[in-house]
Amino acid sequence: MNNITFRPVQKEDLDKVFLLLQQLTKIDYSSRNLDDCWVSFINNNSSNSLVGIFNKKIVAYGSVIIENKIRGEVAGHIEDIVVDKEVRGKNFGIKLINELVNIAKDNKCYRITLFCDEPLTKFYSKNGFKMFSDKVIMKNSLWMRN
Amino acid sequence: MNNITFRPVQKEDLDKVFLLLQQLTKIDYSSRNLDDCWVSFINNNSSNSLVGIFNKKIVAYGSVIIENKIRGEVAGHIEDIVVDKEVRGKNFGIKLINELVNIAKDNKCYRITLFCDEPLTKFYSKNGFKMFSDKVIMKNSLWMRN
Repeated sequence: MNNITFRPVQKEDLDKVFLLLQQLTKIDYSSRNLDDCWVSFINNNSSNSLVGIFNKKIVAYGSVIIENKIRGEVAGHIEDIVVDKEVRGKNFGIKLINELVNIAKDNKCYRITLFCDEPLTKFYSKNGFKMFSDKVIMKNSLWMRN
Repeated sequence: MNNITFRPVQKEDLDKVFLLLQQLTKIDYSSRNLDDCWVSFINNNSSNSLVGIFNKKIVAYGSVIIENKIRGEVAGHIEDIVVDKEVRGKNFGIKLINELVNIAKDNKCYRITLFCDEPLTKFYSKNGFKMFSDKVIMKNSLWMRN
């Protein structure tokens, strides 16, 4: 069937998710221990991450961080969206974003934000996102890669 | 003494922190229950929030979210920086950012990001932040205020 399904990421998915994320940002994780990665990730209970499955293969990954602010508001932050380059053009990215937006709604987020490369603004506009016209993003690279 | 000190936010600070945050974004929290706000906030163990104290008063607040990514990297996201308008011009903002950057370093963040209004880029540049030249921020307002 030409359909993608989504479910929460599991430890058994790590190898495949790591390979997929290399399409987004190449990092050297050869010295990392999968168990350590998983324990830190899963203990950070604010991340909700999904894998997308198509023809029994993991072809997409994405995450939404749920931030409980001190005044009781909840904000969502979308991170690390990737769809396997082999299966692009099938609207899997849009479906993934919709799933993450639904997680944010279930968590009562008043707003979801994300950073993206400029050419992707069209893609996100189809998902109800608008550019922040008056804000800029700043980063402070503390070590390793930026 | 003309010095500001920082410590983690406590439940007893909520009233004062709420007042301070109104300087950043006005919201109506009259119907919110302080206990509920605190429980949701404190159970989200990824937020590290500080208050700044000057002349025995809470005059600053800021938060850094620690995100454990699936590949083992750790990223920091700075949110909700505010310094009381009565005490601006004393470099308290820079000191607050330095404290939050140190929390991010202690948590082994490889990078810290934040959104800010364009006029504040000079301020953040003094703290080691650079503008992301090729990224834009998008938002999806799910309910209430944007």
